[in-house]
Amino acid sequence: MTLTEHFEVVPDPAAGAAVKAADRAHVFHSWSAQGLIDPLAVAGAAGSYFWDYDGKRYLDFSSQLVNTNIGHQHPKVVAAIQEQAAKLCTIAPGFAVDVRSEAARLIAERTPGDLDKIFFTNGGAEAVENAVRMARLHTGRSKVLSAYRSYHGATAAAINLTGDPRRWPSDTASAGVVHFWAPFLYRSPFHAETEEQECERALRHLEDTIAYEGPQTIAAIILETVPGTAGIMVPPPGYLAGVREICDKYGIVFVLDEVMAGFGRTGRWFAADHWDVTPDLMTFAKGVNSGYVPLGGVAISAEIAATFDTRPYPGGLTYSGHPLACASAVATINTMAEERIVENAAEIGERVLGPGLRELAERHPSVGEVRGMGAFWALDLVRDRATREPLVPYNASGADNQPMAEFAAACKQRGLWPFVNMNRTHVVPACTVTEAEAKEGLAILDEALTTADAHTV
Amino acid sequence: MTLTEHFEVVPDPAAGAAVKAADRAHVFHSWSAQGLIDPLAVAGAAGSYFWDYDGKRYLDFSSQLVNTNIGHQHPKVVAAIQEQAAKLCTIAPGFAVDVRSEAARLIAERTPGDLDKIFFTNGGAEAVENAVRMARLHTGRSKVLSAYRSYHGATAAAINLTGDPRRWPSDTASAGVVHFWAPFLYRSPFHAETEEQECERALRHLEDTIAYEGPQTIAAIILETVPGTAGIMVPPPGYLAGVREICDKYGIVFVLDEVMAGFGRTGRWFAADHWDVTPDLMTFAKGVNSGYVPLGGVAISAEIAATFDTRPYPGGLTYSGHPLACASAVATINTMAEERIVENAAEIGERVLGPGLRELAERHPSVGEVRGMGAFWALDLVRDRATREPLVPYNASGADNQPMAEFAAACKQRGLWPFVNMNRTHVVPACTVTEAEAKEGLAILDEALTTADAHTV
Ligand SMILES: Cc1ncc(COP(=O)(O)O)c(C=O)c1O
Ligand SMILES: Cc1ncc(COP(=O)(O)O)c(C=O)c1O
Repeated sequence: MTLTEHFEVVPDPAAGAAVKAADRAHVFHSWSAQGLIDPLAVAGAAGSYFWDYDGKRYLDFSSQLVNTNIGHQHPKVVAAIQEQAAKLCTIAPGFAVDVRSEAARLIAERTPGDLDKIFFTNGGAEAVENAVRMARLHTGRSKVLSAYRSYHGATAAAINLTGDPRRWPSDTASAGVVHFWAPFLYRSPFHAETEEQECERALRHLEDTIAYEGPQTIAAIILETVPGTAGIMVPPPGYLAGVREICDKYGIVFVLDEVMAGFGRTGRWFAADHWDVTPDLMTFAKGVNSGYVPLGGVAISAEIAATFDTRPYPGGLTYSGHPLACASAVATINTMAEERIVENAAEIGERVLGPGLRELAERHPSVGEVRGMGAFWALDLVRDRATREPLVPYNASGADNQPMAEFAAACKQRGLWPFVNMNRTHVVPACTVTEAEAKEGLAILDEALTTADAHTV
Repeated sequence: MTLTEHFEVVPDPAAGAAVKAADRAHVFHSWSAQGLIDPLAVAGAAGSYFWDYDGKRYLDFSSQLVNTNIGHQHPKVVAAIQEQAAKLCTIAPGFAVDVRSEAARLIAERTPGDLDKIFFTNGGAEAVENAVRMARLHTGRSKVLSAYRSYHGATAAAINLTGDPRRWPSDTASAGVVHFWAPFLYRSPFHAETEEQECERALRHLEDTIAYEGPQTIAAIILETVPGTAGIMVPPPGYLAGVREICDKYGIVFVLDEVMAGFGRTGRWFAADHWDVTPDLMTFAKGVNSGYVPLGGVAISAEIAATFDTRPYPGGLTYSGHPLACASAVATINTMAEERIVENAAEIGERVLGPGLRELAERHPSVGEVRGMGAFWALDLVRDRATREPLVPYNASGADNQPMAEFAAACKQRGLWPFVNMNRTHVVPACTVTEAEAKEGLAILDEALTTADAHTV
């Protein structure tokens, strides 16, 4: 029996219409033209599914914004939230609280190396903001290097680090950020032909950029361990170790952003575990508690923590280490361990999603590349496999984006909720996804991809 | 019977020691030198009180970080969180959800004027970040004017707007922020002697600053309606209306930050209601749901919302309009209305706190000024009433701060948890505070102030 069978999905279109009307009257939506959106009213969710007020159920291959790693409404996490709500919802960051201590301990236990001090935030952007602040104060330097093809959040420092078009309207030329190119063999910035070449050239490019920027001016290099929204580009072996070496050579703080890749998504607790690399700071959010309560944070090395041993750390927020959020993190992490959810993600990736997606690629000319690991996959859709011309132009909208819009609509019509970005669809179900659910999703993708195929040359 | 009597306060010092040890091992605290802090382990809280593991109870005159306007663990809000947890903890911002729609509607119903579209965030800093982004894109201008003696949060844009020493370590000269002086008669930047003079001169100063900065370069003016952490300086009559007029004259967006002053704190739903002023954007957080779940947001005027009707708004966050947070806001706002909690704050301020604090000022030479309204009061402590020399220097630490440290310790020892900042203690209990609780707190302040008196000349 699946989780959803516990839930009754009772259609109630009138209630849905009222929810939507109130939404359109009063809710201002992120990243949207307010007059052009038509948000689906969601009535409920469980496990790998959510449903609307017409009783239509969607297999959630987006994990919302790639955050519900444990699936929707996991009963153990729900119970933990209810218990903590009865006990202590909120308390200021200055106090010590059992669930905050325990969440920090459980996270520190899993983070690589000596990243054993945890600064909690409400989400990913604030985690990045604080990591950058720590790096700047620790080094006394100001510049931060980050990659094109990245997303780090939408507050001022985080959006300036971001390497996608969402940065442009909030760009501050003077924010102290320098963008460089990270490895991505399929669309190689370095004209490489093998993973080894891509890795070597990417490291050379990074070191050249550092030389010309001035190593003594650079506080930090920030990278998503596996860039997420930008396309799930698994780094070639040796790249992250090479960046670690470069950072050590120049006294630069190495920040890994694991907001999306962390907490099971790649089939390990952290993506960094795949390459045994230890950054100086690691940001997290999303999977830490599957977003059941807003939570994020920074895991801090002993050396950087020591900088703030007698000198006050000049950053904070009202809800740092929020008890309700921490209680849900404790329950999430313990449940993921007990139920071997990280292992499930690894296995489903290895045994079902990877092979299944590659099999789709064989039959669908619109699939240019299949990339990923665990429950973290991308299909790079193309008009032409030979030239690798993307199915839609970079940052397309309106008519230009029609092929992707059609593809997304075809998925939704068939009961699959996809994560679509630019010319890609990401396959990012819950880490709890079963083999049957994964196959159900693959079958729908198979059908929907025929709409993309129609746009190939 | 008070709320706390429902709760058993069972001492368990060993458990408290364990919580603290785990905290010191793994929790990195905001605004602190990690090696020099000794956080109190909190075991529970209810209504106007919280308690530690020794069974010692504290009357909470801080409302934590001035956020628990409805008191600790209000049973109706706890129940709403538990119900929503069972139903739907999280869903992406792109969907429509009943509790998100309803929270937006309830907030829009209360905000002044046509501020009827609500963009939700996780807290205050993110609200300010987004308000600034909206103002810049709406006007096509880049500078933002904010006041010295202010706090707007700790992300990059918010900390640069902040007008207190917490900004200094994260200062970016190029952030496009210009600080000006807001009215504060007791320590007048304008050498004024009456409220009228202060108001007139402050407006003149603001308009002069605008003239010299270039009105066509200024996107927004942001002000805390009643500056909170910086000292609870109630603006003179006419000041906010004057700023509104100046903004209209130059096409500048007027942002009021009601993160601390909003949702009942001043004895009205919003502090702006005292002066019938309508900003173009209003930020909120804290009191909107008493911080039971992280939540903040921006209320947006029709004109600014229209800017993003066909042009996408380029900002967002994973947990915008988080269902659990929105459910707690719905319950909080409805409960505050049903139980007349805003009215209680007004009445306690008028009838108990105001008179009580003024009476303390008469007897304690260390009290230079009593300022405030509702459940939002400050005692400005001085070494010398004649010169108004602060009891401790601006931004004092260590031995220099000894008089304030002694005062805080005297409060805590007697079972009162104060909100202390610089040379001030703020009296900011829950808006649900009873007359008896307020008087209990006043009696402790009376005793603790003798330690401050000892440092007067
Ligand atoms: C890698 C990465 N960093 C940071 C963020 C920002 O997180 P939040 O939306 O919680 O601010 C995201 C969100 O998608 C992300 O994927
Ligand atoms: C007026 C004001 N604005 C913004 C903030 C920042 O809010 P947060 O700590 O939730 O980011 C605060 C916090 O104290 C505040 O008082």
